[in-house]
Amino acid sequence: MQIGMIGLGRMGANMVRRLQKSGHECVVYDRSSEAVQALAQEGMTPAASVQDFLSKLSAPRVVWLMLPAVVVDASIAELVPLLDADDIVIDGGNSYYKDDIARAKRLAEQSVRYVDVGVSGGTWGLERGYCLMIGGQQKIVAHLQPIFASLAPGADTAPRTEGRCGTPTAAENGYLHCGPEGAGHFVKMVHNGIEYGMMAAYAEGFNLLRHANVGGVAREHDAETTPLREPETFRYDIDVAEVAELWRRGSVVGSWLLDLTAHALQSDADLTQFSGRVSDSGEGRWTSIAAIESGTPAPVLTAALFDRFNSRGEADYGNKLLSALRYEFGGHHEKN
Amino acid sequence: MQIGMIGLGRMGANMVRRLQKSGHECVVYDRSSEAVQALAQEGMTPAASVQDFLSKLSAPRVVWLMLPAVVVDASIAELVPLLDADDIVIDGGNSYYKDDIARAKRLAEQSVRYVDVGVSGGTWGLERGYCLMIGGQQKIVAHLQPIFASLAPGADTAPRTEGRCGTPTAAENGYLHCGPEGAGHFVKMVHNGIEYGMMAAYAEGFNLLRHANVGGVAREHDAETTPLREPETFRYDIDVAEVAELWRRGSVVGSWLLDLTAHALQSDADLTQFSGRVSDSGEGRWTSIAAIESGTPAPVLTAALFDRFNSRGEADYGNKLLSALRYEFGGHHEKN
Amino acid sequence: MQIGMIGLGRMGANMVRRLQKSGHECVVYDRSSEAVQALAQEGMTPAASVQDFLSKLSAPRVVWLMLPAVVVDASIAELVPLLDADDIVIDGGNSYYKDDIARAKRLAEQSVRYVDVGVSGGTWGLERGYCLMIGGQQKIVAHLQPIFASLAPGADTAPRTEGRCGTPTAAENGYLHCGPEGAGHFVKMVHNGIEYGMMAAYAEGFNLLRHANVGGVAREHDAETTPLREPETFRYDIDVAEVAELWRRGSVVGSWLLDLTAHALQSDADLTQFSGRVSDSGEGRWTSIAAIESGTPAPVLTAALFDRFNSRGEADYGNKLLSALRYEFGGHHEKN
Amino acid sequence: MQIGMIGLGRMGANMVRRLQKSGHECVVYDRSSEAVQALAQEGMTPAASVQDFLSKLSAPRVVWLMLPAVVVDASIAELVPLLDADDIVIDGGNSYYKDDIARAKRLAEQSVRYVDVGVSGGTWGLERGYCLMIGGQQKIVAHLQPIFASLAPGADTAPRTEGRCGTPTAAENGYLHCGPEGAGHFVKMVHNGIEYGMMAAYAEGFNLLRHANVGGVAREHDAETTPLREPETFRYDIDVAEVAELWRRGSVVGSWLLDLTAHALQSDADLTQFSGRVSDSGEGRWTSIAAIESGTPAPVLTAALFDRFNSRGEADYGNKLLSALRYEFGGHHEKN
Repeated sequence: MQIGMIGLGRMGANMVRRLQKSGHECVVYDRSSEAVQALAQEGMTPAASVQDFLSKLSAPRVVWLMLPAVVVDASIAELVPLLDADDIVIDGGNSYYKDDIARAKRLAEQSVRYVDVGVSGGTWGLERGYCLMIGGQQKIVAHLQPIFASLAPGADTAPRTEGRCGTPTAAENGYLHCGPEGAGHFVKMVHNGIEYGMMAAYAEGFNLLRHANVGGVAREHDAETTPLREPETFRYDIDVAEVAELWRRGSVVGSWLLDLTAHALQSDADLTQFSGRVSDSGEGRWTSIAAIESGTPAPVLTAALFDRFNSRGEADYGNKLLSALRYEFGGHHEKN
Repeated sequence: MQIGMIGLGRMGANMVRRLQKSGHECVVYDRSSEAVQALAQEGMTPAASVQDFLSKLSAPRVVWLMLPAVVVDASIAELVPLLDADDIVIDGGNSYYKDDIARAKRLAEQSVRYVDVGVSGGTWGLERGYCLMIGGQQKIVAHLQPIFASLAPGADTAPRTEGRCGTPTAAENGYLHCGPEGAGHFVKMVHNGIEYGMMAAYAEGFNLLRHANVGGVAREHDAETTPLREPETFRYDIDVAEVAELWRRGSVVGSWLLDLTAHALQSDADLTQFSGRVSDSGEGRWTSIAAIESGTPAPVLTAALFDRFNSRGEADYGNKLLSALRYEFGGHHEKN
Repeated sequence: MQIGMIGLGRMGANMVRRLQKSGHECVVYDRSSEAVQALAQEGMTPAASVQDFLSKLSAPRVVWLMLPAVVVDASIAELVPLLDADDIVIDGGNSYYKDDIARAKRLAEQSVRYVDVGVSGGTWGLERGYCLMIGGQQKIVAHLQPIFASLAPGADTAPRTEGRCGTPTAAENGYLHCGPEGAGHFVKMVHNGIEYGMMAAYAEGFNLLRHANVGGVAREHDAETTPLREPETFRYDIDVAEVAELWRRGSVVGSWLLDLTAHALQSDADLTQFSGRVSDSGEGRWTSIAAIESGTPAPVLTAALFDRFNSRGEADYGNKLLSALRYEFGGHHEKN
Repeated sequence: MQIGMIGLGRMGANMVRRLQKSGHECVVYDRSSEAVQALAQEGMTPAASVQDFLSKLSAPRVVWLMLPAVVVDASIAELVPLLDADDIVIDGGNSYYKDDIARAKRLAEQSVRYVDVGVSGGTWGLERGYCLMIGGQQKIVAHLQPIFASLAPGADTAPRTEGRCGTPTAAENGYLHCGPEGAGHFVKMVHNGIEYGMMAAYAEGFNLLRHANVGGVAREHDAETTPLREPETFRYDIDVAEVAELWRRGSVVGSWLLDLTAHALQSDADLTQFSGRVSDSGEGRWTSIAAIESGTPAPVLTAALFDRFNSRGEADYGNKLLSALRYEFGGHHEKN
């Protein structure tokens, strides 16, 4: 079917490439005319402006936005006066699911349909397919099924779960209608929260493997510092790159993130090109906020989030206060 | 080659089956003669006693112990007077790596060799192969290589990591000599620590998905309880079984544990057969202790551990104290 | 000066009592006429309705609301049409500071002034005085100074901090103008967040003291459960009530919360009248949300919050999933 | 009574001063003859060597060690051949309670008595008194009561807990016999664990107050970074020194640590003389280890501990791995 894509960055460009391969007709637009031209040369229909873009789409139009969360509302505001009843706006970016609820309500006032899609797959999606978490009205989501099916990885990208039979479900193909508006981004949000937790689990584990040799390192002893009690039990030099590779086979902790860890470590196990300032995007924060609002314990996911803040120096003032208090009650001076 | 296995439970029995398939000669012993007989009928050499067992092994004997951690030392004590110089004792159970160091030292006094092997794979190992983390002296570990190679999953059980070339390494085959005595169980310990963290990440995430409908549930309002501010944003009924299936394809959080989650949820998404009292074994505890001893931050892995204690009621007294304090300063009564 | 109080519950009633003692004229109103009559008999001016209440206050009226957070907006909505320019509305309840910002803006449209006051002190405030955290415009806050000074504990309720000299500041008297509208409740919110963290610190510590005897308790040993390695090191029966009393004198952990702990434990160290379902109010949640929104690590305060959710069974589904996964990969059955 | 003190650092010197004031006869020894001379000039009996020290004590000797934990065993080893049956060795330092159990057993072989005392009070103890947590045999502890009573703060240093009557207990005087050998250091260990949790609660809270103005600070927006949704709600400049002072009066979070916080902040609220590398001593680690060993959830105390490790850069490698993974799956580059 025909689809229009606004936003041709890393994600959007590859998504239309994958759609085109499945025979869908793609109309593409981006503020950057270079991005548009690149895809035009691959056979897609370029648009020079939003107006041009909309004029090239047949009714009811299907407009997929693949934009930074911060500009989605502005983009929708620009589109709204130009859209007709029954046109469909899909937000495939990293929006806050509460914004989806508000947008769907606003757009419904003029009979424009809104669908939110959480997309996982990153730069690998073109090849692996995109995992799609979808929110919106049943009828609209059903109408878009061919698009979702083409973007998704397909059922045979994972062995079938024992006990399942019959025609694979949509989820088994890699896309799922999760509920009404916002449900797609809600599930994607939680997905990213889990991702933070898993990443932290690996990060802590590999960091501990790297500390397995601290018994061989001299450590200061004084009235405040207790010595390592059994230094002979911390004298291992673990080859973390080989461990990551090892765990990919037959272990309980095998995962795609572990595959990536093995790749990252095999070229440079010291990770010297990284400084360790870890960014976080909205979903990790919103997951913890949703947990708090709904009264759901999420200590692991939230600890992972806070450690990212910490990695960027945001705990510094608190740490200074701890040192100050140690000085106040014990006369302890900071060590270097 | 020839190998003797003591301990024919879930793990030990399947391991000798896998070894036998590769042509190794297996002598088997267990306190339960039934367990021994079962394997005898599959063509393995049964032993009626430890003495019988040792007499059926040629020098240097290879004795693999696959026993609960708590009985390993007693078993070794029983073996020691009967072993000869250059015999090899392998502990494949869930021992604390510090015990390996002590045992290796004791056995070395009479020239018996000690190798520790952390084994991952659970009940699935017979089919998937066992991921082996090995500690011990280089020469001994090299001697045992045929055994390890047969137990391990093999290189083709995971796609090769981009950038690797030449003959696959041992790790790529699913076994790794991690360092001197104790290193195998050290790496296995950290592996299980990571496992706890990953499991908690999924558990918290799926629990949050199940809380996505709290906005539709009535909630008491009073001076102490603040209402859910935007109940309309928590009105989703998420099909968690389908979400688990979905994420298996193309998402960032795909893993073997997620495959198992999908299997567990597809038959009963309410998990009614479980009460939620979660056991923990030694490795999770030792991981956190090793982190503390070595000065390595591991908040995520340790939060996962403590939540298991909590699931078994071990926080109850602390919680009572919190309720008591709320009563003391605010006159607040507990709610049901 | 004259002040009107709406809301005569535990907090409001005692606050007017304290104000009356300092010579302020108090007009009181509550939906419960009994509450009003009780204070009338103590010499305060009773009001039979909101209209009656407002008619008894001279311009510019000072209306202090001491109500559950959930009804404050409704109460303000009822007042607004009846108020005159320059009247002052004070919210002394547990409002979300973001609501203060919105309310102040709405009320400013008709020149009504808004002040938010976070009040700490609980049922003890009548005797100890109330610690007041104030947000609002400088001029209005200054106008209300006599009220704040009377409610606050006063400078001599704590020894002066070394290095301070001259006339005690407002903070040294126990009230502080923290910033524009919302600042009072912001600081109160963080205060409660800290309170959660401190309470959890004591709860975990005393719970650990109660576990000091686990070495004398039989514990199941099997393939999954590792025994307590040194049971002889966990054979203490600690008298926690005496420990709480002890730490009140000369220790680093002395605090008012510890005083209350000592009181709670001395009558019943087993705390048998409590079940351990710990409530949480808005401030603890908002503190963690504010930390997440502002990128501030707050793992300790947030762990304390999540543990309260956990105490009320909100982790159950996640725990069931953990048990299900243990069964999936290892065939482990839950234990009781 | 007569007491010998070995170790005249910050703690030991002040403790004998406090004992002398109460009329006890103090024999003092330290490797540093300067430290000995200083106290000799204050009227105490100096010792030039361990032999000299022991010769000046009458039987049964009372030898109090106030030494860094790491040298206690060496010091005891030096003393042992010179001690007589019924002599008493007291370790008042920061020993691991498991060491106490071992030492008591060794010393008992030659009928020397061992008492462990956890001492809280820091540099303030001379003036405030020392809070003493005591482990050992009932008879020996009773014999030493005059020493403990003199060191302790005394009952009138805190208001009596409501409901207590009759002669104040030892705990109400600030010392407590907690149980057999090791019990003193066990309780002191937990005390310090609580201290870590409380300190972290304040540190996180004050750090959050310092972040209350982030809405006024420019923040980068791009595809990965979500903007602060309501920047107008983070525009407060909170005077943290005044807040600390404020909370000292009438609030729920008042404590001695808050008194110290107020002192630390009033001279320099930016804490510019500290870098934020926070040391930890043995007790904090042992508390978390004891929690893990005994199956007691202690997420708050342990998060506080790990954050200290983190403040010293010990999370760096894990953070680099997180950045590496973000690059692997999303092509995200680290930001500065």
